[in-house]
Amino acid sequence: MYEFDEDRRVEAVAPGRYQGNVSARWNVGPIPNGGYVLAVAMAALEAEFDGLDPLTVTAHYLRPAAPGPFAAEVEVIKRGRSYSTAMVRLLQDAREVVRVLATYGTLHESAGPEFVAATPPAAPRERCVPWATPGTGPGFAIAERFAIAFDPEDAERLQGGNGGRAELRGWLRFADRRPPDTACLGLIADAFPPPVFQVTPRGWVPTIELTVHVRARPSTEWLNCGFRTRFLSGGLLEEDGEIWDESGRLVALSRQLAGAPRMST
Amino acid sequence: MYEFDEDRRVEAVAPGRYQGNVSARWNVGPIPNGGYVLAVAMAALEAEFDGLDPLTVTAHYLRPAAPGPFAAEVEVIKRGRSYSTAMVRLLQDAREVVRVLATYGTLHESAGPEFVAATPPAAPRERCVPWATPGTGPGFAIAERFAIAFDPEDAERLQGGNGGRAELRGWLRFADRRPPDTACLGLIADAFPPPVFQVTPRGWVPTIELTVHVRARPSTEWLNCGFRTRFLSGGLLEEDGEIWDESGRLVALSRQLAGAPRMST
Repeated sequence: MYEFDEDRRVEAVAPGRYQGNVSARWNVGPIPNGGYVLAVAMAALEAEFDGLDPLTVTAHYLRPAAPGPFAAEVEVIKRGRSYSTAMVRLLQDAREVVRVLATYGTLHESAGPEFVAATPPAAPRERCVPWATPGTGPGFAIAERFAIAFDPEDAERLQGGNGGRAELRGWLRFADRRPPDTACLGLIADAFPPPVFQVTPRGWVPTIELTVHVRARPSTEWLNCGFRTRFLSGGLLEEDGEIWDESGRLVALSRQLAGAPRMST
Repeated sequence: MYEFDEDRRVEAVAPGRYQGNVSARWNVGPIPNGGYVLAVAMAALEAEFDGLDPLTVTAHYLRPAAPGPFAAEVEVIKRGRSYSTAMVRLLQDAREVVRVLATYGTLHESAGPEFVAATPPAAPRERCVPWATPGTGPGFAIAERFAIAFDPEDAERLQGGNGGRAELRGWLRFADRRPPDTACLGLIADAFPPPVFQVTPRGWVPTIELTVHVRARPSTEWLNCGFRTRFLSGGLLEEDGEIWDESGRLVALSRQLAGAPRMST
Protein backbone atom coordinates (compact mmCIF):
# COMPACT_ATOMS: atom_id res chain seq x y z
CA MET A 1 0.00 0.00 0.00
CA TYR A 2 1.29 3.45 -0.90
CA GLU A 3 2.17 5.85 1.93
CA PHE A 4 -0.52 8.34 1.01
CA ASP A 5 -3.27 5.70 0.95
CA GLU A 6 -2.09 4.22 4.22
CA ASP A 7 -2.13 7.65 5.83
CA ARG A 8 -5.61 8.66 4.74
CA ARG A 9 -7.50 5.50 5.67
CA VAL A 10 -10.83 6.16 7.35
CA GLU A 11 -13.04 3.68 9.11
CA ALA A 12 -16.83 4.12 9.21
CA VAL A 13 -18.08 3.95 12.80
CA ALA A 14 -21.67 5.16 12.26
CA PRO A 15 -23.62 6.76 9.40
CA GLY A 16 -21.61 9.82 8.38
CA ARG A 17 -19.06 9.20 11.16
CA TYR A 18 -15.50 8.13 10.45
CA GLN A 19 -12.28 7.77 12.34
CA GLY A 20 -8.65 7.48 11.42
CA ASN A 21 -5.17 8.61 12.26
CA VAL A 22 -3.29 11.74 11.21
CA SER A 23 0.21 10.58 10.29
CA ALA A 24 3.39 12.51 11.15
CA ARG A 25 4.87 11.55 7.78
CA TRP A 26 3.45 14.68 6.09
CA ASN A 27 4.67 17.10 8.75
CA VAL A 28 6.16 20.50 8.14
CA GLY A 29 8.08 20.84 11.38
CA PRO A 30 5.77 19.58 14.13
CA ILE A 31 2.57 20.26 12.18
CA PRO A 32 0.83 18.07 9.60
CA ASN A 33 0.68 19.76 6.20
CA GLY A 34 -2.67 21.48 5.54
CA GLY A 35 -3.10 19.84 2.16
CA TYR A 36 -2.64 16.44 3.75
CA VAL A 37 -5.27 17.26 6.38
CA LEU A 38 -7.63 18.27 3.56
CA ALA A 39 -6.90 14.95 1.82
CA VAL A 40 -7.84 13.10 5.00
CA ALA A 41 -11.17 14.94 5.16
CA MET A 42 -11.68 14.13 1.48
CA ALA A 43 -11.25 10.43 2.28
CA ALA A 44 -14.39 10.66 4.42
CA LEU A 45 -16.20 12.42 1.55
CA GLU A 46 -15.01 9.73 -0.86
CA ALA A 47 -16.64 7.13 1.40
CA GLU A 48 -19.96 8.99 1.16
CA PHE A 49 -19.72 9.82 -2.56
CA ASP A 50 -18.41 6.50 -3.83
CA GLY A 51 -17.24 6.77 -7.42
CA LEU A 52 -17.64 10.55 -7.75
CA ASP A 53 -14.77 12.96 -8.31
CA PRO A 54 -14.13 16.02 -6.16
CA LEU A 55 -14.91 19.09 -8.28
CA THR A 56 -14.41 21.92 -5.79
CA VAL A 57 -13.21 21.55 -2.23
CA THR A 58 -12.69 24.31 0.35
CA ALA A 59 -11.03 23.84 3.74
CA HIS A 60 -11.05 26.43 6.53
CA TYR A 61 -8.29 25.75 9.04
CA LEU A 62 -9.38 26.36 12.62
CA ARG A 63 -6.28 25.22 14.49
CA PRO A 64 -3.17 23.21 13.61
CA ALA A 65 -3.78 19.48 13.35
CA ALA A 66 -1.51 17.11 15.29
CA PRO A 67 -0.34 13.60 14.51
CA GLY A 68 -2.78 11.17 16.15
CA PRO A 69 -6.39 10.05 16.04
CA PHE A 70 -9.16 12.07 14.40
CA ALA A 71 -12.90 11.81 13.95
CA ALA A 72 -14.71 13.03 10.83
CA GLU A 73 -18.38 13.96 10.70
CA VAL A 74 -19.93 14.27 7.27
CA GLU A 75 -23.18 16.06 6.50
CA VAL A 76 -24.40 15.30 2.99
CA ILE A 77 -26.19 18.51 2.00
CA LYS A 78 -27.42 17.46 -1.42
CA ARG A 79 -27.17 14.43 -3.68
CA GLY A 80 -27.91 15.76 -7.16
CA ARG A 81 -27.91 14.39 -10.68
CA SER A 82 -24.86 16.47 -11.67
CA TYR A 83 -23.47 17.79 -8.39
CA SER A 84 -23.45 16.52 -4.83
CA THR A 85 -22.42 18.73 -1.93
CA ALA A 86 -21.27 17.87 1.58
CA MET A 87 -19.60 19.31 4.62
CA VAL A 88 -17.02 17.65 6.87
CA ARG A 89 -15.93 18.46 10.38
CA LEU A 90 -12.53 17.02 11.31
CA LEU A 91 -12.03 16.75 15.07
CA GLN A 92 -9.09 15.85 17.28
CA ASP A 93 -9.58 15.53 21.05
CA ALA A 94 -13.19 16.69 20.49
CA ARG A 95 -11.95 20.02 19.10
CA GLU A 96 -12.66 20.92 15.51
CA VAL A 97 -9.47 21.27 13.48
CA VAL A 98 -10.75 21.89 9.97
CA ARG A 99 -14.12 22.44 8.32
CA VAL A 100 -14.50 21.40 4.68
CA LEU A 101 -17.23 22.26 2.18
CA ALA A 102 -17.11 20.34 -1.09
CA THR A 103 -19.02 19.56 -4.26
CA TYR A 104 -18.46 16.26 -6.03
CA GLY A 105 -19.56 15.08 -9.47
CA THR A 106 -18.19 13.25 -12.49
CA LEU A 107 -15.30 14.60 -14.52
CA HIS A 108 -15.94 14.14 -18.22
CA GLU A 109 -13.15 13.68 -20.74
CA SER A 110 -15.01 15.88 -23.15
CA ALA A 111 -18.26 17.79 -22.85
CA GLY A 112 -18.95 20.69 -25.16
CA PRO A 113 -16.54 23.41 -26.22
CA GLU A 114 -12.90 23.52 -25.09
CA PHE A 115 -10.79 26.62 -24.61
CA VAL A 116 -7.37 26.75 -22.96
CA ALA A 117 -5.46 30.02 -22.65
CA ALA A 118 -2.40 28.80 -20.77
CA THR A 119 0.60 26.54 -21.08
CA PRO A 120 2.07 24.13 -18.51
CA PRO A 121 4.02 26.02 -15.82
CA ALA A 122 7.48 24.41 -15.54
CA ALA A 123 10.13 23.78 -18.15
CA PRO A 124 10.44 20.21 -19.52
CA ARG A 125 11.27 17.78 -16.74
CA GLU A 126 14.76 16.86 -17.98
CA ARG A 127 15.80 20.52 -17.68
CA CYS A 128 14.56 20.89 -14.08
CA VAL A 129 16.78 20.84 -10.99
CA PRO A 130 16.16 18.22 -8.26
CA TRP A 131 15.26 19.83 -4.94
CA ALA A 132 17.81 19.05 -2.26
CA THR A 133 15.65 20.56 0.56
CA PRO A 134 18.65 22.45 1.96
CA GLY A 135 18.51 23.42 5.59
CA THR A 136 15.07 21.99 6.23
CA GLY A 137 16.17 19.78 9.07
CA PRO A 138 14.98 16.39 10.24
CA GLY A 139 11.47 17.58 11.15
CA PHE A 140 10.61 18.25 7.55
CA ALA A 141 9.03 14.83 6.95
CA ILE A 142 6.88 15.87 3.98
CA ALA A 143 9.99 16.50 1.87
CA GLU A 144 10.72 12.77 1.99
CA ARG A 145 7.30 11.90 0.58
CA PHE A 146 7.91 13.49 -2.82
CA ALA A 147 10.48 13.81 -5.54
CA ILE A 148 10.51 17.45 -6.67
CA ALA A 149 12.52 19.19 -9.38
CA PHE A 150 12.28 22.95 -9.85
CA ASP A 151 12.24 24.95 -13.05
CA PRO A 152 15.87 26.07 -13.60
CA GLU A 153 14.90 29.75 -13.49
CA ASP A 154 13.10 29.38 -10.15
CA ALA A 155 15.82 27.15 -8.69
CA GLU A 156 18.31 29.91 -9.39
CA ARG A 157 16.03 32.54 -7.83
CA LEU A 158 15.56 30.31 -4.75
CA GLN A 159 19.34 30.32 -4.27
CA GLY A 160 19.74 34.03 -4.85
CA GLY A 161 17.13 35.28 -2.41
CA ASN A 162 14.85 38.12 -3.46
CA GLY A 163 14.25 37.82 -7.18
CA GLY A 164 11.33 40.24 -7.39
CA ARG A 165 8.96 37.40 -8.15
CA ALA A 166 7.18 34.95 -5.86
CA GLU A 167 6.74 32.02 -8.19
CA LEU A 168 7.81 28.40 -7.93
CA ARG A 169 7.33 26.00 -10.83
CA GLY A 170 8.43 22.42 -10.98
CA TRP A 171 7.70 18.75 -11.30
CA LEU A 172 6.50 16.51 -8.48
CA ARG A 173 5.80 12.83 -7.99
CA PHE A 174 5.26 10.69 -4.92
CA ALA A 175 8.53 9.26 -3.60
CA ASP A 176 6.97 5.78 -3.65
CA ARG A 177 5.70 6.38 -7.20
CA ARG A 178 2.01 6.30 -6.26
CA PRO A 179 0.07 7.19 -9.40
CA PRO A 180 -1.71 10.50 -8.80
CA ASP A 181 -5.50 10.58 -8.86
CA THR A 182 -8.11 13.17 -7.94
CA ALA A 183 -7.91 12.16 -4.25
CA CYS A 184 -4.36 13.47 -3.85
CA LEU A 185 -4.75 16.87 -5.52
CA GLY A 186 -5.69 18.64 -2.29
CA LEU A 187 -2.37 17.47 -0.86
CA ILE A 188 -0.36 18.36 -3.97
CA ALA A 189 -1.89 21.86 -3.92
CA ASP A 190 -0.05 22.51 -0.65
CA ALA A 191 3.09 20.42 -1.17
CA PHE A 192 5.53 22.98 -2.59
CA PRO A 193 7.41 25.41 -0.34
CA PRO A 194 5.58 28.76 -0.27
CA PRO A 195 6.68 30.88 -3.26
CA VAL A 196 6.47 33.97 -1.03
CA PHE A 197 9.82 32.84 0.46
CA GLN A 198 11.40 34.30 -2.66
CA VAL A 199 10.51 37.81 -1.52
CA THR A 200 10.35 37.55 2.29
CA PRO A 201 12.34 35.84 5.01
CA ARG A 202 11.22 32.26 5.63
CA GLY A 203 8.75 31.63 8.42
CA TRP A 204 5.54 29.85 9.27
CA VAL A 205 2.85 30.56 6.64
CA PRO A 206 -0.46 29.61 8.29
CA THR A 207 -3.09 28.58 5.76
CA ILE A 208 -6.46 30.15 6.58
CA GLU A 209 -8.39 28.67 3.68
CA LEU A 210 -7.52 26.41 0.76
CA THR A 211 -9.75 25.82 -2.27
CA VAL A 212 -8.99 23.28 -4.99
CA HIS A 213 -10.86 22.93 -8.28
CA VAL A 214 -10.27 19.47 -9.73
CA ARG A 215 -10.57 19.72 -13.50
CA ALA A 216 -9.38 16.33 -14.82
CA ARG A 217 -8.09 12.96 -13.63
CA PRO A 218 -4.29 12.97 -13.79
CA SER A 219 -2.90 10.25 -16.07
CA THR A 220 0.85 10.45 -15.47
CA GLU A 221 3.18 9.79 -12.54
CA TRP A 222 4.82 13.22 -12.66
CA LEU A 223 2.80 16.42 -12.22
CA ASN A 224 3.86 19.82 -13.55
CA CYS A 225 3.02 22.44 -10.93
CA GLY A 226 3.24 26.20 -10.62
CA PHE A 227 2.53 28.26 -7.50
CA ARG A 228 2.55 32.01 -7.33
CA THR A 229 1.83 34.85 -4.90
CA ARG A 230 1.03 38.21 -6.45
CA PHE A 231 -0.33 40.11 -3.46
CA LEU A 232 1.24 40.18 -0.02
CA SER A 233 -0.35 42.96 2.00
CA GLY A 234 -1.99 43.67 5.32
CA GLY A 235 -0.47 40.49 6.78
CA LEU A 236 -2.23 38.28 4.22
CA LEU A 237 -1.30 36.62 0.95
CA GLU A 238 -2.91 34.45 -1.69
CA GLU A 239 -1.13 31.51 -3.25
CA ASP A 240 -2.45 30.42 -6.64
CA GLY A 241 -1.57 27.02 -8.01
CA GLU A 242 -1.87 25.13 -11.25
CA ILE A 243 -1.34 21.39 -11.46
CA TRP A 244 -0.95 19.77 -14.87
CA ASP A 245 -0.08 16.19 -15.76
CA GLU A 246 2.70 15.18 -18.15
CA SER A 247 0.21 14.69 -20.99
CA GLY A 248 -0.19 18.50 -20.98
CA ARG A 249 -3.58 18.62 -19.36
CA LEU A 250 -4.56 20.89 -16.45
CA VAL A 251 -5.78 18.66 -13.61
CA ALA A 252 -6.38 21.22 -10.85
CA LEU A 253 -6.40 24.90 -9.93
CA SER A 254 -5.80 25.90 -6.34
CA ARG A 255 -5.88 29.08 -4.32
CA GLN A 256 -5.19 29.57 -0.65
CA LEU A 257 -5.44 32.54 1.69
CA ALA A 258 -2.61 32.50 4.21
CA GLY A 259 -1.00 34.71 6.80
CA ALA A 260 2.28 36.40 5.90
CA PRO A 261 5.36 34.41 6.96
CA ARG A 262 6.06 34.81 10.67
CA MET A 263 8.92 33.65 12.79
CA SER A 264 7.97 30.84 15.13
CA THR A 265 8.12 32.00 18.73
CA MET B 1 -31.20 53.90 1.89
CA TYR B 2 -29.19 52.46 -1.00
CA GLU B 3 -30.71 49.67 -3.09
CA PHE B 4 -28.09 47.12 -2.08
CA ASP B 5 -28.55 47.79 1.63
CA GLU B 6 -32.32 47.67 1.32
CA ASP B 7 -32.08 44.34 -0.50
CA ARG B 8 -29.79 42.61 1.97
CA ARG B 9 -31.56 43.49 5.20
CA VAL B 10 -31.84 40.60 7.64
CA GLU B 11 -33.91 40.43 10.77
CA ALA B 12 -32.83 38.32 13.74
CA VAL B 13 -35.62 35.97 14.79
CA ALA B 14 -33.69 33.75 17.23
CA PRO B 15 -30.03 33.20 18.15
CA GLY B 16 -28.26 32.48 14.85
CA ARG B 17 -31.56 32.64 12.92
CA TYR B 18 -32.36 35.41 10.47
CA GLN B 19 -34.98 36.16 7.87
CA GLY B 20 -35.26 38.52 4.96
CA ASN B 21 -36.35 38.87 1.38
CA VAL B 22 -34.50 38.06 -1.84
CA SER B 23 -35.14 40.98 -4.16
CA ALA B 24 -35.81 40.61 -7.90
CA ARG B 25 -33.75 43.76 -8.55
CA TRP B 26 -30.52 41.76 -8.95
CA ASN B 27 -31.99 39.19 -11.33
CA VAL B 28 -30.28 37.77 -14.39
CA GLY B 29 -33.39 36.72 -16.28
CA PRO B 30 -35.71 35.09 -13.73
CA ILE B 31 -32.92 34.14 -11.31
CA PRO B 32 -31.29 36.27 -8.61
CA ASN B 33 -27.57 36.77 -9.27
CA GLY B 34 -25.36 34.34 -7.32
CA GLY B 35 -23.13 37.11 -6.00
CA TYR B 36 -26.16 38.91 -4.63
CA VAL B 37 -27.34 35.72 -2.91
CA LEU B 38 -23.88 35.40 -1.35
CA ALA B 39 -24.10 39.03 -0.18
CA VAL B 40 -27.42 38.25 1.51
CA ALA B 41 -25.86 35.31 3.35
CA MET B 42 -22.96 37.58 4.32
CA ALA B 43 -25.45 40.01 5.88
CA ALA B 44 -26.36 37.28 8.37
CA LEU B 45 -22.64 36.70 9.06
CA GLU B 46 -22.14 40.43 9.55
CA ALA B 47 -24.85 40.36 12.22
CA GLU B 48 -22.91 37.62 14.07
CA PHE B 49 -19.44 39.09 13.54
CA ASP B 50 -20.23 42.74 14.22
CA GLY B 51 -17.34 44.98 13.18
CA LEU B 52 -15.24 42.26 11.53
CA ASP B 53 -14.39 42.16 7.84
CA PRO B 54 -14.97 39.14 5.63
CA LEU B 55 -11.55 37.68 4.74
CA THR B 56 -12.50 34.58 2.75
CA VAL B 57 -16.00 33.54 1.82
CA THR B 58 -17.06 30.45 -0.15
CA ALA B 59 -20.59 29.75 -1.42
CA HIS B 60 -21.76 26.43 -2.83
CA TYR B 61 -24.93 26.86 -4.90
CA LEU B 62 -27.38 24.03 -4.40
CA ARG B 63 -30.31 25.29 -6.48
CA PRO B 64 -31.30 28.63 -8.03
CA ALA B 65 -32.64 31.16 -5.56
CA ALA B 66 -35.95 32.88 -6.28
CA PRO B 67 -37.20 36.34 -5.41
CA GLY B 68 -39.08 36.12 -2.11
CA PRO B 69 -38.57 35.28 1.56
CA PHE B 70 -35.55 33.44 2.90
CA ALA B 71 -34.34 32.12 6.22
CA ALA B 72 -30.65 32.06 7.20
CA GLU B 73 -29.17 29.78 9.84
CA VAL B 74 -25.70 30.65 11.10
CA GLU B 75 -23.38 28.27 12.95
CA VAL B 76 -20.44 30.11 14.49
CA ILE B 77 -17.67 27.51 14.34
CA LYS B 78 -14.93 29.50 16.03
CA ARG B 79 -14.47 32.96 17.48
CA GLY B 80 -10.71 33.52 17.49
CA ARG B 81 -8.35 36.34 18.32
CA SER B 82 -7.32 36.76 14.66
CA TYR B 83 -9.86 34.75 12.69
CA SER B 84 -13.48 33.80 13.24
CA THR B 85 -15.19 31.14 11.13
CA ALA B 86 -18.86 30.45 10.52
CA MET B 87 -21.21 28.60 8.23
CA VAL B 88 -24.55 29.78 6.85
CA ARG B 89 -27.45 27.85 5.39
CA LEU B 90 -29.77 29.96 3.23
CA LEU B 91 -33.23 28.40 2.87
CA GLN B 92 -36.27 29.24 0.77
CA ASP B 93 -39.49 27.26 1.25
CA ALA B 94 -37.56 25.07 3.71
CA ARG B 95 -35.16 23.98 0.94
CA GLU B 96 -31.50 24.88 1.17
CA VAL B 97 -30.45 27.18 -1.67
CA VAL B 98 -26.84 28.00 -0.81
CA ARG B 99 -24.32 26.93 1.83
CA VAL B 100 -21.61 29.41 2.80
CA LEU B 101 -18.39 28.86 4.74
CA ALA B 102 -16.53 32.01 5.73
CA THR B 103 -13.70 33.34 7.84
CA TYR B 104 -13.86 36.90 9.17
CA GLY B 105 -11.21 39.06 10.81
CA THR B 106 -9.83 42.57 10.71
CA LEU B 107 -8.22 44.01 7.60
CA HIS B 108 -5.13 46.00 8.48
CA GLU B 109 -3.91 48.94 6.44
CA SER B 110 -0.36 47.79 6.92
CA ALA B 111 1.09 44.78 8.66
CA GLY B 112 4.55 43.59 7.77
CA PRO B 113 6.09 43.29 4.32
CA GLU B 114 4.23 44.30 1.15
CA PHE B 115 4.70 42.78 -2.29
CA VAL B 116 2.49 43.42 -5.31
CA ALA B 117 3.26 41.80 -8.66
CA ALA B 118 0.31 43.08 -10.68
CA THR B 119 -1.24 46.24 -12.03
CA PRO B 120 -4.92 47.29 -12.07
CA PRO B 121 -6.82 45.42 -14.80
CA ALA B 122 -8.69 48.02 -16.90
CA ALA B 123 -7.43 51.07 -18.75
CA PRO B 124 -7.98 54.47 -17.08
CA ARG B 125 -11.68 55.13 -16.60
CA GLU B 126 -11.94 58.04 -19.03
CA ARG B 127 -10.80 55.75 -21.86
CA CYS B 128 -13.37 53.03 -21.09
CA VAL B 129 -16.59 52.46 -23.04
CA PRO B 130 -19.95 52.62 -21.20
CA TRP B 131 -21.81 49.31 -21.38
CA ALA B 132 -25.12 49.66 -23.19
CA THR B 133 -26.28 46.12 -22.22
CA PRO B 134 -27.46 45.47 -25.79
CA GLY B 135 -30.09 42.82 -26.28
CA THR B 136 -30.36 41.92 -22.63
CA GLY B 137 -34.10 42.54 -22.48
CA PRO B 138 -36.29 43.70 -19.64
CA GLY B 139 -35.58 40.66 -17.42
CA PHE B 140 -31.99 41.75 -16.94
CA ALA B 141 -32.63 43.77 -13.79
CA ILE B 142 -29.08 43.59 -12.43
CA ALA B 143 -27.79 45.70 -15.35
CA GLU B 144 -29.80 48.63 -13.98
CA ARG B 145 -28.11 48.41 -10.59
CA PHE B 146 -24.64 49.34 -11.87
CA ALA B 147 -22.85 51.73 -14.14
CA ILE B 148 -20.22 49.74 -16.05
CA ALA B 149 -17.62 50.84 -18.60
CA PHE B 150 -15.43 48.29 -20.38
CA ASP B 151 -11.79 48.52 -21.30
CA PRO B 152 -11.74 49.69 -24.95
CA GLU B 153 -9.90 46.54 -26.08
CA ASP B 154 -12.43 44.22 -24.44
CA ALA B 155 -15.42 46.29 -25.60
CA GLU B 156 -14.19 45.83 -29.17
CA ARG B 157 -13.72 42.09 -28.66
CA LEU B 158 -17.23 41.84 -27.17
CA GLN B 159 -18.63 43.30 -30.40
CA GLY B 160 -16.54 41.17 -32.67
CA GLY B 161 -17.36 37.77 -31.16
CA ASN B 162 -14.56 35.25 -30.73
CA GLY B 163 -11.41 37.16 -29.97
CA GLY B 164 -9.35 34.19 -28.77
CA ARG B 165 -9.39 35.53 -25.23
CA ALA B 166 -12.00 35.25 -22.49
CA GLU B 167 -11.25 38.37 -20.49
CA LEU B 168 -13.40 41.31 -19.49
CA ARG B 169 -11.92 44.34 -17.73
CA GLY B 170 -13.72 47.49 -16.79
CA TRP B 171 -14.95 49.95 -14.22
CA LEU B 172 -18.06 49.51 -12.10
CA ARG B 173 -19.99 51.55 -9.57
CA PHE B 174 -23.45 51.22 -8.08
CA ALA B 175 -26.08 53.08 -10.15
CA ASP B 176 -27.24 54.87 -6.98
CA ARG B 177 -23.62 55.70 -6.13
CA ARG B 178 -23.51 53.56 -2.97
CA PRO B 179 -19.92 53.69 -1.69
CA PRO B 180 -18.46 50.18 -1.94
CA ASP B 181 -17.38 48.42 1.25
CA THR B 182 -16.31 44.89 2.06
CA ALA B 183 -19.97 43.75 2.33
CA CYS B 184 -20.61 44.23 -1.40
CA LEU B 185 -17.53 42.52 -2.81
CA GLY B 186 -19.23 39.10 -3.05
CA LEU B 187 -21.82 40.72 -5.28
CA ILE B 188 -19.29 42.64 -7.37
CA ALA B 189 -17.33 39.41 -7.92
CA ASP B 190 -20.28 38.06 -9.92
CA ALA B 191 -21.62 41.30 -11.47
CA PHE B 192 -19.85 41.33 -14.85
CA PRO B 193 -21.13 39.28 -17.79
CA PRO B 194 -19.20 36.00 -18.02
CA PRO B 195 -15.96 36.55 -19.98
CA VAL B 196 -16.37 33.08 -21.49
CA PHE B 197 -19.01 34.63 -23.78
CA GLN B 198 -16.10 35.97 -25.80
CA VAL B 199 -15.22 32.45 -26.92
CA THR B 200 -18.54 30.56 -26.75
CA PRO B 201 -22.17 31.28 -27.63
CA ARG B 202 -24.03 32.99 -24.81
CA GLY B 203 -26.08 30.84 -22.46
CA TRP B 204 -26.79 30.18 -18.82
CA VAL B 205 -23.53 29.81 -16.83
CA PRO B 206 -24.51 28.09 -13.57
CA THR B 207 -22.16 28.95 -10.71
CA ILE B 208 -21.28 25.84 -8.71
CA GLU B 209 -19.00 27.56 -6.18
CA LEU B 210 -17.77 31.10 -5.67
CA THR B 211 -14.90 32.10 -3.38
CA VAL B 212 -13.95 35.68 -2.60
CA HIS B 213 -10.83 36.82 -0.74
CA VAL B 214 -11.35 40.32 0.61
CA ARG B 215 -7.95 41.99 0.86
CA ALA B 216 -8.70 45.65 1.66
CA ARG B 217 -11.58 48.02 2.32
CA PRO B 218 -12.41 49.86 -0.90
CA SER B 219 -12.08 53.64 -0.60
CA THR B 220 -13.46 54.92 -3.92
CA GLU B 221 -16.85 54.92 -5.63
CA TRP B 222 -15.59 53.28 -8.82
CA LEU B 223 -13.98 49.84 -8.80
CA ASN B 224 -11.56 48.59 -11.45
CA CYS B 225 -12.38 44.96 -12.21
CA GLY B 226 -10.97 42.20 -14.40
CA PHE B 227 -12.49 38.76 -14.95
CA ARG B 228 -10.91 35.99 -16.97
CA THR B 229 -11.48 32.35 -17.90
CA ARG B 230 -8.41 30.40 -18.94
CA PHE B 231 -9.72 26.84 -18.88
CA LEU B 232 -13.02 25.69 -20.34
CA SER B 233 -13.05 21.91 -20.51
CA GLY B 234 -15.14 18.90 -19.60
CA GLY B 235 -18.21 21.11 -19.25
CA LEU B 236 -16.61 23.22 -16.50
CA LEU B 237 -14.84 26.55 -16.33
CA GLU B 238 -13.19 28.76 -13.74
CA GLU B 239 -13.67 32.51 -13.67
CA ASP B 240 -10.94 34.46 -11.88
CA GLY B 241 -11.57 38.02 -10.80
CA GLU B 242 -9.60 40.94 -9.46
CA ILE B 243 -11.28 43.97 -7.93
CA TRP B 244 -9.23 47.11 -7.32
CA ASP B 245 -10.34 50.52 -6.16
CA GLU B 246 -9.47 53.79 -7.90
CA SER B 247 -6.66 54.48 -5.44
CA GLY B 248 -4.80 51.59 -7.11
CA ARG B 249 -5.27 49.07 -4.35
CA LEU B 250 -6.43 45.47 -4.77
CA VAL B 251 -9.56 45.00 -2.65
CA ALA B 252 -10.58 41.44 -3.59
CA LEU B 253 -9.67 38.32 -5.52
CA SER B 254 -12.43 36.00 -6.66
CA ARG B 255 -12.66 32.61 -8.32
CA GLN B 256 -15.71 30.66 -9.27
CA LEU B 257 -16.28 27.19 -10.69
CA ALA B 258 -19.17 27.19 -13.14
CA GLY B 259 -20.77 24.97 -15.75
CA ALA B 260 -20.08 25.75 -19.41
CA PRO B 261 -22.69 28.03 -21.00
CA ARG B 262 -25.82 26.13 -21.91
CA MET B 263 -28.88 27.20 -23.78
CA SER B 264 -31.93 27.51 -21.57
CA THR B 265 -34.52 24.89 -22.51
